[in-house]
Amino acid sequence: MGIVVVGTVAFDTVETPFGRGENVLGGSATYFSTSASFFTDVSLVAVVGEDFPEEHLQFLRSREIDLQGLQRIPGKTFHWTGRYGYDLNEAQTLDTQLNVLLEFKPELPTSYRDTEVLFLANIDPELQLQVLDQVKSPKLTACDSMNFWISSKPEALKEVMRRVDIVVINEGEARMLTGEANLVKAARSIISLGCKRLVVKRGEYGVLMFTADSVFAAPAWPLEEVFDPTGAGDTFAGGFMGYLANTGDLSEEGVRQALVFGSVMASFNVEDFSLNRMKRLSYPEIEARYRSFKGLTSFRDLRMT
Amino acid sequence: MGIVVVGTVAFDTVETPFGRGENVLGGSATYFSTSASFFTDVSLVAVVGEDFPEEHLQFLRSREIDLQGLQRIPGKTFHWTGRYGYDLNEAQTLDTQLNVLLEFKPELPTSYRDTEVLFLANIDPELQLQVLDQVKSPKLTACDSMNFWISSKPEALKEVMRRVDIVVINEGEARMLTGEANLVKAARSIISLGCKRLVVKRGEYGVLMFTADSVFAAPAWPLEEVFDPTGAGDTFAGGFMGYLANTGDLSEEGVRQALVFGSVMASFNVEDFSLNRMKRLSYPEIEARYRSFKGLTSFRDLRMT
Repeated sequence: MGIVVVGTVAFDTVETPFGRGENVLGGSATYFSTSASFFTDVSLVAVVGEDFPEEHLQFLRSREIDLQGLQRIPGKTFHWTGRYGYDLNEAQTLDTQLNVLLEFKPELPTSYRDTEVLFLANIDPELQLQVLDQVKSPKLTACDSMNFWISSKPEALKEVMRRVDIVVINEGEARMLTGEANLVKAARSIISLGCKRLVVKRGEYGVLMFTADSVFAAPAWPLEEVFDPTGAGDTFAGGFMGYLANTGDLSEEGVRQALVFGSVMASFNVEDFSLNRMKRLSYPEIEARYRSFKGLTSFRDLRMT
Repeated sequence: MGIVVVGTVAFDTVETPFGRGENVLGGSATYFSTSASFFTDVSLVAVVGEDFPEEHLQFLRSREIDLQGLQRIPGKTFHWTGRYGYDLNEAQTLDTQLNVLLEFKPELPTSYRDTEVLFLANIDPELQLQVLDQVKSPKLTACDSMNFWISSKPEALKEVMRRVDIVVINEGEARMLTGEANLVKAARSIISLGCKRLVVKRGEYGVLMFTADSVFAAPAWPLEEVFDPTGAGDTFAGGFMGYLANTGDLSEEGVRQALVFGSVMASFNVEDFSLNRMKRLSYPEIEARYRSFKGLTSFRDLRMT
């Protein structure tokens, strides 16, 4: 199955203790689609300004990402500026220039409306709802969001969560959305909105995935060098959804395997600035790290002694 | 194999958002030995004052813990007072009355000196070194510590870590001890001191275990109700070391299995105040939760498709 992703394409200016990237390629849909493109066909819906360079478009095309849905309108491309401290866990936003994002009206090309898999990356939940109205009968839908929308448009966001199959958000956001300090309670509360699965991202601590009657825990890969965490969550989601779309296996086992592929992709992405690691990543490397995840987490069954 | 544990036996006064326990049974050696007693014979070395009630001694005896090494001296028992906020991750110490702990000189009864397994719970590293000098030829030694000793006696503590097989500390302490923000680098630095294994406790995020050439990640059990995290780390260490002492299997597989038993024990302990959950815990419950940990973490091998 192919995937349609709706989100942002951006310029990022990022500072970490290990260096600085100025006006580098970023955006939720960029990271998501690049990561997913290792597993399946991806079509991208987003907006950029007149300043968006051909070089970046060429990179996305080189990943065979369909850009029919990428609008180019007068004005400047969305620009995010942020900084990470030594713990690399949370970005401090220094500046947000929404620019053309203020006029973004996601319009799915006709051929995208039959998509079987849809991912709504982090954008205004009212736009996410408009996108959901445009797809015909997707087999699998999922969304991400962020604290800004949780505080400014909680009702629209909850409506999105009611309508998608899988919600992907980070730990702090799950707590904020539900007002529950306990993560298991927060998860139950989100699932009770109507989605089937909740994936909670916990940064360097990995991921928890909840359904009404199961929990799965996957660690993050313990890396000795983390250069830039920007886009890790979107790269994770891209690997997760991309692998799911590829196999079409929505059994608990199938979804767990896809989740680990998501963690694998995120673990590569943080090894370099922007999408630099993705640009030189090969599929054999991905499979090798999946096997290493097995080694990282496996322990013996309990035998009767 | 049996275990000797050296540490504290204390009164705790603990406040969490879910209640308050006043002058309840606590202390690192208490939690450790109770947890380990589900798997092997335990001998406890610690000090209490004249105010320590028979009731608590009876409880420890009911767990078949050998109390020959428990000194009772004039004065009051060590008393810790602390509080946890809603996130339950870190205790705020409100008061520490060291009392008889100030005069503690760990003296191993002769029969303890042949022990095959020794655990040095969190006490002054200079006392930990004195204990190491008293044991003859243990097959397995391990230690815990805390931020207070890292800042006040780093050299003595590093000497302990040089001399034991396994170091068990929490994440923040590993970073503090080494001055490394990256946990993998911090782990390598601690292992280079001379211990064979490092177990890093990460609270609700689980545990990472490092050797010079392997890493193992185990999640914490996702609990809907956490009442009191006090003693979770010592209960974890007790289950881990207790199971290891029971099996004597120091292979990577054997140690991983023991680590998961440690996580199982900690997950029970936080379900109630003080050692209340331990008091009504049964071995079948422990095995059932071990199996649930398998279900929590298992995912498919990668097959060629």
